[in-house]
Amino acid sequence: MLEKSGTEKKISKERFRRESPQIRTELVRLQDRLKTAGFPVVILISGSEGAGKGETINLLMEWLDARGVEVQSFWRSTDEEEDRPRFWRYWRVFPSDGRIGIFFGSWYTHPIIGRVFHDIGKRTFRGELERIAKFEKMLAQDGVLLLKFWLHLSKKAQKKRLLKLEEDPETRWRVSKTDWRFFKKYDRFRKISEKALAHTHRPHAPWIVINAEDDEYRHLTVAQTILENLKKRLSAKGGPAPRPDLPVPRPRNILRRLKLDQAMDHDAYKLELADLQGRLGRLTRKLSGTRRSLILAFEGNDAAGKGGAIHRVVRAIDTRLFRVIPVAAPTDEEKAHPYLWRFWRHLPLSGRVTVFDRSWYGRVLVERIEGFCSKPDWERAYSEINEFESQLTGHGIILIKFWLSISKDEQLRRFKERREVSRKNYKITDEDWRNRDKWDAYEAAACDMFERTHSPAAPWILVESNNKLYARVKVLRAVVERLEEEL
Amino acid sequence: MLEKSGTEKKISKERFRRESPQIRTELVRLQDRLKTAGFPVVILISGSEGAGKGETINLLMEWLDARGVEVQSFWRSTDEEEDRPRFWRYWRVFPSDGRIGIFFGSWYTHPIIGRVFHDIGKRTFRGELERIAKFEKMLAQDGVLLLKFWLHLSKKAQKKRLLKLEEDPETRWRVSKTDWRFFKKYDRFRKISEKALAHTHRPHAPWIVINAEDDEYRHLTVAQTILENLKKRLSAKGGPAPRPDLPVPRPRNILRRLKLDQAMDHDAYKLELADLQGRLGRLTRKLSGTRRSLILAFEGNDAAGKGGAIHRVVRAIDTRLFRVIPVAAPTDEEKAHPYLWRFWRHLPLSGRVTVFDRSWYGRVLVERIEGFCSKPDWERAYSEINEFESQLTGHGIILIKFWLSISKDEQLRRFKERREVSRKNYKITDEDWRNRDKWDAYEAAACDMFERTHSPAAPWILVESNNKLYARVKVLRAVVERLEEEL
Repeated sequence: MLEKSGTEKKISKERFRRESPQIRTELVRLQDRLKTAGFPVVILISGSEGAGKGETINLLMEWLDARGVEVQSFWRSTDEEEDRPRFWRYWRVFPSDGRIGIFFGSWYTHPIIGRVFHDIGKRTFRGELERIAKFEKMLAQDGVLLLKFWLHLSKKAQKKRLLKLEEDPETRWRVSKTDWRFFKKYDRFRKISEKALAHTHRPHAPWIVINAEDDEYRHLTVAQTILENLKKRLSAKGGPAPRPDLPVPRPRNILRRLKLDQAMDHDAYKLELADLQGRLGRLTRKLSGTRRSLILAFEGNDAAGKGGAIHRVVRAIDTRLFRVIPVAAPTDEEKAHPYLWRFWRHLPLSGRVTVFDRSWYGRVLVERIEGFCSKPDWERAYSEINEFESQLTGHGIILIKFWLSISKDEQLRRFKERREVSRKNYKITDEDWRNRDKWDAYEAAACDMFERTHSPAAPWILVESNNKLYARVKVLRAVVERLEEEL
Repeated sequence: MLEKSGTEKKISKERFRRESPQIRTELVRLQDRLKTAGFPVVILISGSEGAGKGETINLLMEWLDARGVEVQSFWRSTDEEEDRPRFWRYWRVFPSDGRIGIFFGSWYTHPIIGRVFHDIGKRTFRGELERIAKFEKMLAQDGVLLLKFWLHLSKKAQKKRLLKLEEDPETRWRVSKTDWRFFKKYDRFRKISEKALAHTHRPHAPWIVINAEDDEYRHLTVAQTILENLKKRLSAKGGPAPRPDLPVPRPRNILRRLKLDQAMDHDAYKLELADLQGRLGRLTRKLSGTRRSLILAFEGNDAAGKGGAIHRVVRAIDTRLFRVIPVAAPTDEEKAHPYLWRFWRHLPLSGRVTVFDRSWYGRVLVERIEGFCSKPDWERAYSEINEFESQLTGHGIILIKFWLSISKDEQLRRFKERREVSRKNYKITDEDWRNRDKWDAYEAAACDMFERTHSPAAPWILVESNNKLYARVKVLRAVVERLEEEL
């Protein structure tokens, strides 16, 4: 891919002066339309050292309306970033709908540099590229307009550029020892970059390789490309057409095979509870001294006892170590970002525990059944969720997912009780009754979900919950045993 | 204040069992009403070591609906927190309207511990308390329900508690060397705490001191107190009645005394610009190696050239070092927090530059004139803003505020030009024309603002802007000269 851009391309200063006002005017006009268009734009500016990435960004910042655009640069990670999977730092600064984010450095930096200097092996490198490809596919399907620029310099041109920068006292600071160290690796850097580009050049996220030698050519081409893509996208009807995944094979209904009524008397419960909570307290203290963290996700039928189970778990943990995140309707800031953003923002620091009371699985449960998102959207959610969870567990986060299951009769009994016991009144709404009417659809959706998102690293634990005491003990035991294994 | 709670108070386990269900029921019901009541609740749990703060929080977490409440504990600061003024860590986790935040540790920890161990002097201590008093007053007036609990133990009781915890293998971990180190300082800790409590016991944020010796008494009293205050506040009509500050003395109109037409020809401009931008580039690189950061706030008449001036400043700075924050209508997450939250969230890391295109002064300009907030709200904003800025500058942040001023005729000329030049079209709206009709009111509000918020540490620079070239150079020079002074 870099070969093609090898021949030098030039634009005269005069032509630049002649053409730029019109591009500028149109860019700003399109940016104004973008404000209400309901999608964000992410522009990656990557490429050779000394290719003028900074200057190009400066120019874009000058041409665009600064109020709708933000430059994000990724230098050394902060400790809060180190505590989370690597992609967290991109998620946290992701532009919201209607805005443009220009990324100086990106998710490509780590794998390419790592591979150039042999810090990571071939296999890890390919794995990282595959992760990136999935990530970018998800962004595209969530409606993000992603423009990936690679500013390319030939070896000769790069050397010339570095020497020129060093000559001028005003720009000398910009050439560091690192730059020359990189220059020595030019051939390897190029080879590795070629591989990265080839692997991630996909229809929904193509690379735009630009010969960077001539300032005017580089500037004008980048601006023109942004303009054309933005125009095309703004004129497209109804956004991109996401391609649905393959049809979901109908799994066996494992929920129906659960024995929901399990015995547990109060005395046995008290003994077990005290024992498990004591162990959990010790385990989470141990966890707090490590670089790892724990995420528990709770799903289940309405009134299955999620709240009660969560209480029994967290009361065993030092209050300073855990957070419970209730997942309800998204805020408008959340709605203005790709779906998973609202979960990324709550990932725990290392040593901490985060409990999600309902989770990212809402997409393939309530949103699927109630039609809050389109079929292609929930269909692709399975693989996106798997990828998300693999980033969590890959970072060393311990992840357990619970499904609390009750029978339809037991749910009715509990609904009635809630209506009658004033303390539980707030827990029952008309919506709960409406959901109940769709029992079979929810059950089928849950079974699809287990089938497609259960894995040894991120297992689903099905909890027979007609007896609350039994359910709580089963949840606690699962957490305790997993922690004992992992720590 | 601690004396009064010295006598031991007890509640039998039986009475606790009898009374707690009703309190619990009512708490949850009130919490349900809180959801839509439009204010947040902040509960501080402070007090002696070993007073059972954690247990009380555990109990509250069990009694309350976990979905509407979050425990925030403040341990070691992360590096991202160290980079900002100390209160940033409280702002970033502040609960939004309808939610409850239980703070384990709070803004009192640092001054009290610091003073106990003589890390800070008397004067700093009093200064910190005064800062806290102002902060809490602002919260109260912003509608936050703030409940400050102090769980008190006598010396004898504290010793007993620590020994008892040490005895049980299950709780031994909770007693650290630090606890005994603190215990040795019991008398001093008590004296300093007394002072802190006395100084910050105010009508809008009273302290609730509770004898913590008896678990049942402590639990029931804390829960009961929360319940009563929540009930009272939910039944109050129209929220708290904020007391307005003293009337604003009408300042002289310094804007009318500015000579708005200043000469600057294009050649002189180009020379000056190049020189100043070069210096600014070097200075911000120097800044990036320090623990300090730079904040620029831009205000001014519509069409005064803020955008153009900001462009000339930021294009001199390495794109990785700055961010421009356009301040427009708040998002719903922002609306659900105290006013200043939306600015706190954008404070720069150390070494970085943040430019606010419009700022926290919106409150005393557009919100005042257009009636977006009440008179008492904008009247108290002056002192709140002064306090905010003093926290910034006290942390070592360099802060400069610009007012770009043009004449009414010049504005008309620019509005017409914007309407005609298509590239500038997006910059002119009906609202701009409406604001123009209120020219005199805006001018008076601006003069009040200068009078009340100008200080040597956070100066207002008035920029004569009928000539854009002159204005840009004046802005750049002010930034450069200030940085040269400070670095």
